[in-house]
Amino acid sequence: MYTLGIDIGSTTSKAVILKDGTEIAASSIVVATVGTDGVSQALDNVMKESGLTQADMACTVATGYGRQTYDGADYQVSELTCHALGVHFVCPGARTVIDIGGQDAKVLSLNEEGRMVNFVMNDKCAAGTGRFLDVMANILKLDISQLETEAAKAVKPASISSTCTVFAESEVISQLASGTDIPDLVAGICQSVATRVASLAKRVGVREEVCMSGGVAQNGGVRNAMAKELGVEIYYDKRAQELGALGAAIYAYGKSSQS
Amino acid sequence: MYTLGIDIGSTTSKAVILKDGTEIAASSIVVATVGTDGVSQALDNVMKESGLTQADMACTVATGYGRQTYDGADYQVSELTCHALGVHFVCPGARTVIDIGGQDAKVLSLNEEGRMVNFVMNDKCAAGTGRFLDVMANILKLDISQLETEAAKAVKPASISSTCTVFAESEVISQLASGTDIPDLVAGICQSVATRVASLAKRVGVREEVCMSGGVAQNGGVRNAMAKELGVEIYYDKRAQELGALGAAIYAYGKSSQS
Ligand code: SF4
Repeated sequence: MYTLGIDIGSTTSKAVILKDGTEIAASSIVVATVGTDGVSQALDNVMKESGLTQADMACTVATGYGRQTYDGADYQVSELTCHALGVHFVCPGARTVIDIGGQDAKVLSLNEEGRMVNFVMNDKCAAGTGRFLDVMANILKLDISQLETEAAKAVKPASISSTCTVFAESEVISQLASGTDIPDLVAGICQSVATRVASLAKRVGVREEVCMSGGVAQNGGVRNAMAKELGVEIYYDKRAQELGALGAAIYAYGKSSQS
Repeated sequence: MYTLGIDIGSTTSKAVILKDGTEIAASSIVVATVGTDGVSQALDNVMKESGLTQADMACTVATGYGRQTYDGADYQVSELTCHALGVHFVCPGARTVIDIGGQDAKVLSLNEEGRMVNFVMNDKCAAGTGRFLDVMANILKLDISQLETEAAKAVKPASISSTCTVFAESEVISQLASGTDIPDLVAGICQSVATRVASLAKRVGVREEVCMSGGVAQNGGVRNAMAKELGVEIYYDKRAQELGALGAAIYAYGKSSQS
């Protein structure tokens, strides 16, 4: 039996086809810029990869920010529920999920079945989100993908005292002007994100294993800083970006096998 | 008897000479850029204006962020205390002072003698401070001094949903791109500062009369938005920027007349 999960985010669309609730048959991530149809493209990709058609899907679940915009789904399910299921699939021991996206950060507490039992979220303040990193990368004239390697070269991570993105920006500009090395600044920037999100995580309670997901989790500099900050190991799965879509496909499998 | 108050801020130095605790004999505001000695200049100005010398001062009090850097004072007194005294001098009925500076915002609650009985402060977040206005003026390619007249021309103030400076910046950029008029945007921006600081004021409790001070209070757009937001009249004194120095001179008078 095949089930389909679609995660429609603000900047990317993801699709995953799951076979019998246990095996990923195909997956796709499409960066969807405004005006393009990222969802159709992601669906085309997974159908091509698996050699299946939508008619083969026993159930389809849509999740994510834009899930209301797709009318081909049997169910629309919240991101948090799907995300938790996806994390549980790749890391059954996960009890805490730290998800840092482009504009928000969430910390989820999971039970043994991968169900979310608690969560905290910041979607009001750019500090501790991908947007903080965007602003800083822009000042340092780096691409966001370079932050990890730069942070790894740090000798003495710069200390950034302001949490606020705007005030921290001024600090980074003045440290740059006074000759602080870029790698040290980048390490300080990653640390700032980690500190901010760690305080969110402490509010929900950190239980191991701890798993990171979301676009910012791709940055090893932030992952390392987070591990130090919380004093735990951080589990990271390469499929971090498609865990929402995966969870949606798992949810769809649960629905089909019930009926 | 003459007393001298000096307020050493992060961007300006202010000095006031007070005669017998009741009459302003001279005052000066000097914009102090890094590396220049704003304090000496402000002192030179008030001495020239009054025809007095430092030897004529019965007592000198320094206040403000940089008060520790000036060693010619008899006392160093906190900004909040001096500010409250200065406000009470120009507006004896003031029970609430809303002070919005370049990087912070404070709300003070005063008793009948002009003593501060309670206060709340935001110095962590750029939203609701002068910095928010700087960022926005920069996007709109306006000088900060133009915001008041632009806001006055608004027909339908733009609504800015994000409180965060960084997220609000994106909103303003996209509203600008989609053709919203500058005056409407500026009115929305002033409203945003007012909303944010009003929520701070509500925490301390708003009692009339309400007086605004600090650099941002010069902007009538913010004052009007604040008056609407709180449903009270806002008292504003042209000497708003020198109230700290004035309060320091009043404090100095209190000390000299005791002894
Ligand atoms: S602290 Fe800074 S980044 Fe956070 S909401 Fe305030 S302005 Fe935005």
